[in-house]
Amino acid sequence: MKKVKIYITLRESVLDPQGQAVKNSLHNMSYEDVQDVRIGKYIELEMKDSEDLTKRIEELCEKLLANTVIENYRYEIEEGVAQ
Amino acid sequence: MKKVKIYITLRESVLDPQGQAVKNSLHNMSYEDVQDVRIGKYIELEMKDSEDLTKRIEELCEKLLANTVIENYRYEIEEGVAQ
Repeated sequence: MKKVKIYITLRESVLDPQGQAVKNSLHNMSYEDVQDVRIGKYIELEMKDSEDLTKRIEELCEKLLANTVIENYRYEIEEGVAQ
Repeated sequence: MKKVKIYITLRESVLDPQGQAVKNSLHNMSYEDVQDVRIGKYIELEMKDSEDLTKRIEELCEKLLANTVIENYRYEIEEGVAQ
């Protein structure tokens, strides 16, 4: 079994109203040292190991998890997770 | 300026209905090799550097970004981001 960590972020060119709202809240709470906030998704999968694991991860990211028109994704496969 | 990456995840003991829904969708799409899905948040901050940066990050995570009753957070500070 492998643990897969997937990070989904909005593309640079896409506005992030949720991030803007968080930034405004932080400024209101006197954290003015925060210059920018971008909010994304973090997904942990537990997957059965297979030879084409990376291909399968990319497929399921593109088909379901990420909207590749406005989002980028990257992933890490964690080795050595106990069966 | 530092880039701070914050990962917010549900505690192990807390049910994740969103993750369950994604898992069911993946199974319906014949990705049965996905055993478990947990969904969290990934937040990127750009912050002015300061001596008490880690203290400030922890403060703003606990006050605004994470609900520490049901969520855990961890963060990384990325060095060498251009001013």
